[in-house]
Amino acid sequence: MRVLGVDPGLGRTGYAVVDGSAGRLRLLAAGRIDTEANTDIGARLVALSEMLGAVMAGCSPDAAAVEQLFFSTNRRTAMQVAEARGVILFAVARAGIPVAEYTPAQVKQAVCGYGGADKQQVTRMTRALLALEGNRDDVADACAIAVCHHHRARLSALVQAAGR
Amino acid sequence: MRVLGVDPGLGRTGYAVVDGSAGRLRLLAAGRIDTEANTDIGARLVALSEMLGAVMAGCSPDAAAVEQLFFSTNRRTAMQVAEARGVILFAVARAGIPVAEYTPAQVKQAVCGYGGADKQQVTRMTRALLALEGNRDDVADACAIAVCHHHRARLSALVQAAGR
Repeated sequence: MRVLGVDPGLGRTGYAVVDGSAGRLRLLAAGRIDTEANTDIGARLVALSEMLGAVMAGCSPDAAAVEQLFFSTNRRTAMQVAEARGVILFAVARAGIPVAEYTPAQVKQAVCGYGGADKQQVTRMTRALLALEGNRDDVADACAIAVCHHHRARLSALVQAAGR
Repeated sequence: MRVLGVDPGLGRTGYAVVDGSAGRLRLLAAGRIDTEANTDIGARLVALSEMLGAVMAGCSPDAAAVEQLFFSTNRRTAMQVAEARGVILFAVARAGIPVAEYTPAQVKQAVCGYGGADKQQVTRMTRALLALEGNRDDVADACAIAVCHHHRARLSALVQAAGR
């Protein structure tokens, strides 16, 4: 299974395409989609959609996973992230790719086995699980979300098999 | 000038197309775009984008105006509205239509001449300005946003003319 993980943002959206099956995962592609700060919001959202579309066209993911938002103290930023997130969910659905949503606690639980893990632990575990070399901290969250979806999908398959 | 006013929501988006110039406005079209509650969020956003696209294709607006969001106590609802709003801004920009954003206070100020006006006052003034007959309360906010853009555009034109 090939999973597109997306860490949403208006100015900066991280993405990671993780291939394989849980236990044997590898990072196929990862990067950041940046949009220009001093530009019309509509134009930024169109650019985000187009660039994410190009990533999907290039990598043909089987599924996508997007982190769920929790509002921070900065409401303006939170609103902008939610607007970008809406366009991301739209773009993925339009491409016909099923999308799952995970809370930060679910991502931590799936990657570290503990929902209260801190950011450094998540990054370290993600790097280990994907055998990442070099500094890919800018896409660590997107990688973790994709890994989370792999682990949850494997769990679902195990549960289904046990129920037969 | 033909203005598309949009009152964003995930389950229910109101729209109104107001034609003419300030002082002589008329409602060309108005309606609601509903998306099914028990459906995948991505599919709902795709449906919203497609239906809004059909409205724009049918009415060819010169400009669009969308209300700015302020977070209510219900954060989950606010986030969903922001996600829908992102897709609306995206769809309008992709159609090549310039979009303006107004706060609720700006809409009230433009329609009633008073930023603290209540919802009933705004609805009453909007109905009067557009010579609306029958009960169109479900699209009153979208109408008010379109009227707001007409009034602000006229004001900008007057200011520019005075500066010459």
